[in-house]
Amino acid sequence: MTDSPSDVGNIIDGKAIARRLTDRVKAEVEALHDATGATPGLAVVLVGNDPASEVYVRNKALQTHRAGMRSFMHMLPASTPQEEVLDLIRLLNDNPQIHGILVQLPLPAHMDPVVVTNAIRPEKDVDGLGAVNAGRLSLGIDGIVPCTPLGCLMLIRETLPDLRGLHAVVIGASNLVGKPMAQLLLREGCTVSIGHIHTRDPKGLARQGDILVVATGRSELVRGDWIKPGATVIDVGISRVPTSDGKTKLVGDVVFEEARKVARHITPVPGGVGPMTIACLLHNTLQAARPLLEAAS
Amino acid sequence: MTDSPSDVGNIIDGKAIARRLTDRVKAEVEALHDATGATPGLAVVLVGNDPASEVYVRNKALQTHRAGMRSFMHMLPASTPQEEVLDLIRLLNDNPQIHGILVQLPLPAHMDPVVVTNAIRPEKDVDGLGAVNAGRLSLGIDGIVPCTPLGCLMLIRETLPDLRGLHAVVIGASNLVGKPMAQLLLREGCTVSIGHIHTRDPKGLARQGDILVVATGRSELVRGDWIKPGATVIDVGISRVPTSDGKTKLVGDVVFEEARKVARHITPVPGGVGPMTIACLLHNTLQAARPLLEAAS
Repeated sequence: MTDSPSDVGNIIDGKAIARRLTDRVKAEVEALHDATGATPGLAVVLVGNDPASEVYVRNKALQTHRAGMRSFMHMLPASTPQEEVLDLIRLLNDNPQIHGILVQLPLPAHMDPVVVTNAIRPEKDVDGLGAVNAGRLSLGIDGIVPCTPLGCLMLIRETLPDLRGLHAVVIGASNLVGKPMAQLLLREGCTVSIGHIHTRDPKGLARQGDILVVATGRSELVRGDWIKPGATVIDVGISRVPTSDGKTKLVGDVVFEEARKVARHITPVPGGVGPMTIACLLHNTLQAARPLLEAAS
Repeated sequence: MTDSPSDVGNIIDGKAIARRLTDRVKAEVEALHDATGATPGLAVVLVGNDPASEVYVRNKALQTHRAGMRSFMHMLPASTPQEEVLDLIRLLNDNPQIHGILVQLPLPAHMDPVVVTNAIRPEKDVDGLGAVNAGRLSLGIDGIVPCTPLGCLMLIRETLPDLRGLHAVVIGASNLVGKPMAQLLLREGCTVSIGHIHTRDPKGLARQGDILVVATGRSELVRGDWIKPGATVIDVGISRVPTSDGKTKLVGDVVFEEARKVARHITPVPGGVGPMTIACLLHNTLQAARPLLEAAS
């Protein structure tokens, strides 16, 4: 007997699923190297000293390296002019050792994230946040899908083999998660509803979801009575909140203990969506590298 | 006393609204000419002999001309190889007299509409169907919005000054109408649901809509009891069906006589969305031309 959440039937073990994906990427990187003699490479660009971003970037670089790929890190001071960042992106765009480029968000206030993100060549835009990849996703044609919603979709697919005709509700309409998530679910044949800060009855909307994806950044917004009995619940949020004993803990956008009594499947926080995001970044980098390396070999 | 639908309070007169938009475009074209000495130009490309497409293309060319713009028409036989169409698009992309390019769909079966549509320079893609403009719409950044959903939004705005927080339901998930429509309504702050052929309870979904946009191509699918009392209903469909007296008539995707008793505002077919599509094409061509002409002058 243990209190580890992964022992409970209805909890989606994002950590284990991410590990399997990472292992698969690693094996494919080796096979690609054997076939072509070449190695995929990912460049991560960090501007400024946001402590959370520093942790994310370091983890991304480390895991890229562990998956057998080349990992390049570019850390620039917050005062760097936007034009210098654009110059760096141009160099990375032209560098044949680099197949994926990721600019860690948020950027310092003097930069326009739309301009910077769209400077990345679409074929190397492994975060899938530029207009070309967003458009390809919207049009249902091949492109690079943003890592977090792609990871969410993989978790949903673990619980539901065929999504067609299910009603998927996405709460949160960001470019990073909510909007691409809605498009992915539409592509899978779901009826899709998307709610956000202006939605008048978010609980009523959420309760319709056979699949409920929550990405609002508001800790523990979604209570047990927001959830349709038997739904699959994906919690993208992660916030650190104080506890009654003066410490802190990580929570999601869903009140986990309430929701797990109603949902059939639910992701925990931490250990749900989080690990999938980096695993999908490795997956996207390999996908971006494959055509270039195979064509060159 | 007359039986013209435009005399009834709750009918949205698309013809009149389109005429006002066209008049405004015409006046702005003149003003732009006075300021810069230059004239916007639209090129329309038709491949094959689909009779409906021939009518559409001719109307587009004529109305472009009437709005004071240059109008170029390229009509190619159905047997034209795709590479020749792509060569033509390249010439039009580079032609400084042309600010908008439209390839009439559907294309003959031997062509890939995604490849052809995406060959148009994003700045000249006045149908807004290429990946870059689809992505810009999805990301909420400036771009060219597809004509039909843009026209629908203008009609909705005539009846509802502030869409924020309203629940908009879109039935039909095509790249041409449903998907960009959903994104436009999301950008306006609506809660958005999108249904389609796989939706299990389309009536239940439709009935939630303060705004209901129907673009399924299935004539008279939507009955009166699909509509939330007081809703604004936009009917994008147009089909010719036989009548009991052996003639034919045009109908939409909504059973008009039933729906008008429930809806607060509804578009007729014909005379609703149809006229807005061409008016928005003129609007988009002017928007595409403006920065190029103002920069050159």
